[in-house]
Amino acid sequence: MGVAEHKKLLSDIGVDVDRHAQMMSMGLESYEAQFKSQNNRPKGMEYFDWFMSEIQGQRIAEINKLRAEKKPAVGTFCIFVPEEIIVGAGGACFGLCGGSPATIADAETELPRNICPLIKSAHGFKLQKTCAYTQSSDFIYGETTCEAKKKTWEILNKHHPVHVMNIPHMKREKDLKMWQEEIVEFKEHIEEVAGKKLSLDEMIEGTKIINEKRKAMQRLDSLRGMNPDVIPISGKDALFINQMGFLDDPRRYTQKVNELCDELEKRIDENNSVFEKDTPRLMVLGTPIAPPNWKLHTAVEGSGGAIINEESCIGHRYYKDNVDLDSVETEEDLMKQLMQRYSAVDCACFTPNTPRIDKILKMYEDRKADGVIYYTLSFCHTYNVESHLVTEALEAAGIPCLVIESDYSPEDAGQIKTRVEAFLESISFKKKAKNFKNKD
Amino acid sequence: MGVAEHKKLLSDIGVDVDRHAQMMSMGLESYEAQFKSQNNRPKGMEYFDWFMSEIQGQRIAEINKLRAEKKPAVGTFCIFVPEEIIVGAGGACFGLCGGSPATIADAETELPRNICPLIKSAHGFKLQKTCAYTQSSDFIYGETTCEAKKKTWEILNKHHPVHVMNIPHMKREKDLKMWQEEIVEFKEHIEEVAGKKLSLDEMIEGTKIINEKRKAMQRLDSLRGMNPDVIPISGKDALFINQMGFLDDPRRYTQKVNELCDELEKRIDENNSVFEKDTPRLMVLGTPIAPPNWKLHTAVEGSGGAIINEESCIGHRYYKDNVDLDSVETEEDLMKQLMQRYSAVDCACFTPNTPRIDKILKMYEDRKADGVIYYTLSFCHTYNVESHLVTEALEAAGIPCLVIESDYSPEDAGQIKTRVEAFLESISFKKKAKNFKNKD
Repeated sequence: MGVAEHKKLLSDIGVDVDRHAQMMSMGLESYEAQFKSQNNRPKGMEYFDWFMSEIQGQRIAEINKLRAEKKPAVGTFCIFVPEEIIVGAGGACFGLCGGSPATIADAETELPRNICPLIKSAHGFKLQKTCAYTQSSDFIYGETTCEAKKKTWEILNKHHPVHVMNIPHMKREKDLKMWQEEIVEFKEHIEEVAGKKLSLDEMIEGTKIINEKRKAMQRLDSLRGMNPDVIPISGKDALFINQMGFLDDPRRYTQKVNELCDELEKRIDENNSVFEKDTPRLMVLGTPIAPPNWKLHTAVEGSGGAIINEESCIGHRYYKDNVDLDSVETEEDLMKQLMQRYSAVDCACFTPNTPRIDKILKMYEDRKADGVIYYTLSFCHTYNVESHLVTEALEAAGIPCLVIESDYSPEDAGQIKTRVEAFLESISFKKKAKNFKNKD
Repeated sequence: MGVAEHKKLLSDIGVDVDRHAQMMSMGLESYEAQFKSQNNRPKGMEYFDWFMSEIQGQRIAEINKLRAEKKPAVGTFCIFVPEEIIVGAGGACFGLCGGSPATIADAETELPRNICPLIKSAHGFKLQKTCAYTQSSDFIYGETTCEAKKKTWEILNKHHPVHVMNIPHMKREKDLKMWQEEIVEFKEHIEEVAGKKLSLDEMIEGTKIINEKRKAMQRLDSLRGMNPDVIPISGKDALFINQMGFLDDPRRYTQKVNELCDELEKRIDENNSVFEKDTPRLMVLGTPIAPPNWKLHTAVEGSGGAIINEESCIGHRYYKDNVDLDSVETEEDLMKQLMQRYSAVDCACFTPNTPRIDKILKMYEDRKADGVIYYTLSFCHTYNVESHLVTEALEAAGIPCLVIESDYSPEDAGQIKTRVEAFLESISFKKKAKNFKNKD
């Protein structure tokens, strides 16, 4: 995209263009250093490298073209947003910037210091007007999954429209009934923005598009993590692909992920791994890892480990379930299926949340992993407190686990690397001892 | 209560007797130093001094006598507990220990460091078995008002039965309908513990007892804060009385508070203030102040200020509303009135929570206060984030405000005192300037 055209696009949506340019150049530099330096990357990553270069360029132009046609553009920080409905209305649903430390000082003029960095970063992006996605959104989808967000919406709403969906604390039958009503209300809000009623066919079409997208992501998940001998793509690249799933046009994205998966299948056949033999295979559990927060993956994969899965909202929790359309005949059927799909999400905001533990143990088994890292953003009470029950279950199953709590500051990168190295060493030792024993 | 008898009582309910004795002696020493040293205390404080000396003695014996009669004993950390029902069943409802730093290290073996000290302290008391109230409770009343508590119940439940009530995020009609159902479920749970059905008359009687208690507390509030010339009791003593309202037998407590109020009325007539003329009158806003957490009041009243109200769960938020029994004819009527009373509580867990701001401004006006301290426990996201909107409204109304976030460690006592002193100085200056101007 040309520079002048880009500047006009950004200034039309109220972006602070100069400050934005500085931020973007920092982000691209960081991407260059952390991603392009990797060895033996799949050719299919070229598309995602290109997408990164146009992340706040062409993609923003596409979204604003939709808006010009009265198609809704919805920004979100949470995977409970029923994006099927937005896409059914021909609109775009996208994750908002919230992974950078560069906006946090601004946010702290209105928010406490000791809340999660994602919320502060996102709020700061709005105050700074340096996120073209935030500026492009008709409204921000808010929810009640975490109390710092729940209360921040009241403040953010002074700066940008926020529509809050009530996500319950529990999953009893009556809670699910109310949840379904929330989805209906969300649909009505989308209809208001679009200025027209949505047909069942349109919403089914939107659901199919998102189902296909999630299927492609499941395929990628399976290819990177399910083969015990070959890991055909780095965890960092796979994380980045997942991250871009929250920004890209879902049809193009699905196609590109599937093309990449074709290549990864070939790599597996050819025994072409991006990691050395016996590299410890790690799963990451916990809170979302929003771009450009690549700290953990860089630490692990720069220290001789491989990340084969993220049990995270930006990861497996997002794509694990699809909407069952088989028996959908009426709009109410669809709303019910959407509710069932979304209420299967095992966010730590629910009490109790025991199915998450069973799932983690099964994921670990399926992937023949060698250890897990429980990663939480600082001050995320729900995932943080839940880590006790999760790590207790892991310990009982004899699964090595490292708990890391971190924010976006670069300050703890060294400390994290040291802890990760020690963890990898202990795992490698066990792995080699086990392999040696198996040979006997 | 005799030493041997006391030891037997405590060991019968599983208290770690030796450790408990150490904790209690620290608590009593701290009370002695911070309370008995005050000048010109009302004679009516003698009862509360006595209660403190028997806080985990006679009162525990009373509760366990009720339990022996199959009357329910319910421990709580939150004012949403419908205590009217418990008292209607002839049982006891009491606040659990959660104001001491001495149990926090134990709690941190199971909980993250960066959650609110009240939760950690309370959890630690259970792990240590050093709170006779916790040990005496048939179950702990849990709720969903804050996510750190919501998730901690899952862990605490391994050590003690917890019954969780779902408090909604919002107060729409459908949320309130569900809330009423929660109160009905709570009643059924109490019936299970009591092993018998509760009659409407019993529950009305329980409601009348608690209404009378709240009326006495309102009376105390009014006497301490509504007279611009005379403050007949220190803020610290009044806070302590409020704190003991969560432990004492409600009938005896009501009588004793009313007796004290008779004395305070006389003091007002006689112009007998415990503070010097022109002492800055402060309101405290925010999170609960559980005993023995008297740090803030000691800092303020030891630096030349007077606290005339706590807009807190241990304070005005607890006693401001009564249950309207006028039109109650059926059990459903009563459940509805309970729901309406409890849903009037303006906890920061709700979104939006704007009535709280209007209330604060009115309280300030009514009490002719000179400033406010917005006090939050560390890591309490809801009150912490909400402080932005509250302080914005205060600023717009020209009300001086100091924001203090603190935990239970004694380490910041000096820093708090310095900040309070500076705040009081600036208020005194304004107050004198205003009085001088008014004389002209």
